[in-house]
Amino acid sequence: MSHSARLVDLVSARLAEFIEDRASILAEVSPDLAPFIEYSRRFLSGGKRFRALFAYWGYHAVAHAGPSVDEPFDAETDDQLDVIVAAAAALELFHAAALVHDDIMDNSETRRGAPAAHVLFRTLHREQGFVGQADAFGRSAALLFGDLFLGWADELLDEGLNALPHRGAARMARYEFNLMRTEVTAGQYLDVLEEVGWNTVDEVELRVRAERVALFKSAKYSVEAPLLIGASIAGATAADRATLSSFGLPLGMAFQLRDDLLGVFGDPKTTGKPAGDDLIEGKRTVLIAMARERLAAGPRQLLDELLGDPSLSQQQIQMLQQTIIDSGAALEVEQLIRSYVAEAVDSLEAGQLSRAATVELKRLAESVAHREH
Amino acid sequence: MSHSARLVDLVSARLAEFIEDRASILAEVSPDLAPFIEYSRRFLSGGKRFRALFAYWGYHAVAHAGPSVDEPFDAETDDQLDVIVAAAAALELFHAAALVHDDIMDNSETRRGAPAAHVLFRTLHREQGFVGQADAFGRSAALLFGDLFLGWADELLDEGLNALPHRGAARMARYEFNLMRTEVTAGQYLDVLEEVGWNTVDEVELRVRAERVALFKSAKYSVEAPLLIGASIAGATAADRATLSSFGLPLGMAFQLRDDLLGVFGDPKTTGKPAGDDLIEGKRTVLIAMARERLAAGPRQLLDELLGDPSLSQQQIQMLQQTIIDSGAALEVEQLIRSYVAEAVDSLEAGQLSRAATVELKRLAESVAHREH
Repeated sequence: MSHSARLVDLVSARLAEFIEDRASILAEVSPDLAPFIEYSRRFLSGGKRFRALFAYWGYHAVAHAGPSVDEPFDAETDDQLDVIVAAAAALELFHAAALVHDDIMDNSETRRGAPAAHVLFRTLHREQGFVGQADAFGRSAALLFGDLFLGWADELLDEGLNALPHRGAARMARYEFNLMRTEVTAGQYLDVLEEVGWNTVDEVELRVRAERVALFKSAKYSVEAPLLIGASIAGATAADRATLSSFGLPLGMAFQLRDDLLGVFGDPKTTGKPAGDDLIEGKRTVLIAMARERLAAGPRQLLDELLGDPSLSQQQIQMLQQTIIDSGAALEVEQLIRSYVAEAVDSLEAGQLSRAATVELKRLAESVAHREH
Repeated sequence: MSHSARLVDLVSARLAEFIEDRASILAEVSPDLAPFIEYSRRFLSGGKRFRALFAYWGYHAVAHAGPSVDEPFDAETDDQLDVIVAAAAALELFHAAALVHDDIMDNSETRRGAPAAHVLFRTLHREQGFVGQADAFGRSAALLFGDLFLGWADELLDEGLNALPHRGAARMARYEFNLMRTEVTAGQYLDVLEEVGWNTVDEVELRVRAERVALFKSAKYSVEAPLLIGASIAGATAADRATLSSFGLPLGMAFQLRDDLLGVFGDPKTTGKPAGDDLIEGKRTVLIAMARERLAAGPRQLLDELLGDPSLSQQQIQMLQQTIIDSGAALEVEQLIRSYVAEAVDSLEAGQLSRAATVELKRLAESVAHREH
């Protein structure tokens, strides 16, 4: 079994163990919390675990690159493995919280091909014959469910970091996690803001604004921060951190650009989301900004009018997809992805990271940038 | 200036300082986050600060009651004051997050007589001439705003606890905070569940279910947990904790019962909420459960039909208020409050708490149980 596959298994096991522990608190409060327990298990069992993998390889890159701090790590002892596994699991738990809240905000019915959390609670309402609005109950319950996960992510991270003898490393990892949390929430707001406020800003700023959303919502959050949290646990130097950032940021941009393409052109069978999901939600991505720049006034106006219309027909979605392809923006985004990945991979070579991590991060870069869901 | 007044000032100053620090992160992400900064200041400047006061007096009760742990505190040094002030401020920040999310779930327009967070963002949408639904934008932005506060509460608590030399005390305080966070979220869910699911459970269980919501959503959260967090910082013994719990739990029940009465009978001028707010929201409180037990089938059915109807007229609200008074439930709740307060105050006498804390907690018990907003 590969290092990465083993890590994913360890993270899944750590999450399952954590949820069982917290489930006992919920069960003691009331048997009515059984859905919280069931949905917790369900929402934490899947996913691509990219963030966990970046955290682990950020850790390995530094821990196995030789002494790099005052108090160097000799080797990867079991204790340190527990720390990085807990931190990686905490990132997955935080991400699950973000997705639960995201799906409420975006009115998304599905997540990874299965019902979103607010849909599960809405269904519970109907099945149990409750009174009042099933929809409102679903959203409220999911909001609380996400809040619970946010707190738990924090606790799981602490369980890991408290076992780290190197206190400076623990503080640095915690600092990175906290900064990530503030920045991704800010980025999410900018994303929501762009959907409704794009018409109030100068045309020429739209692409830069979309890139900023991608930077904070994805590049830092999904790639750079996990790498730095892992690296911090291994006691990374400023040079290690700089190398990982100059790999993580461009790769993170590529990650989001792939997301932009999947959001418009992705196959529902692999994405687990409806066709043209971003078009229906009215996401103002870099892809959309680039298409708008390239389109003549007429088609651009049509795009603006249809984007975000929840009642878009399949035919309208196909027409918009074709408009974006014809503009040349989809191709330009593909090229941009390739150039970001090349930049990321080149940065790796310049650093002093562990050999295994360098190899594995390159592989991850390709799979992140060319994923199909 | 009294000890309590001084503490409230210190907590407010600590919150203001913390927000200014985090505001600089937001400002660096984008100038578009200015509303987050402005609303943060606004939402953290007011409130009754009960939770901060319970945390402080829980701390004082133990810290000044003489040596009680292996490594006793000599006196209240400035360092320890910083720790308890940060912890008290963190409780207020967590509470602000809970209120922001609460107001989304309850569709409340006002909070402390001012617009709720989702209303502020909705207004921003309208004033800026954004496209799409102002309502949906308001709710999404406020959801993220609450998420940000949840994370920040955590960070502020750590800033305090990291400065505490007694690591066992810091771990215990963190444990209490974490447990509180899980239990209050569970309690909030049970509250939301009761609004829609009361018709699916046995009549005779309704009061016990309402009491359980009050226990987790208020008694533990608003009184017992703050006391125990403060006491933990001072290195409380099991006996100290037992005394504070046997004071905090009944007082917390009285706190919620007063809330029940204010939610139905409170004066909008002092509560900052519409008249009969709980009736409009359909809250299934202990007060309502007691009224239902005492009402004949006809008026009980009328109460069930009208409760939670967002279009209740002033006249219908007055009629429901009168029905609840006539049932005798309001009077019974007043008596219950008195008996809970008496139980709480008696428990204090039995303990070994500091003299000043005993006096001040008695005063707080009266003001919490007989507050007008």
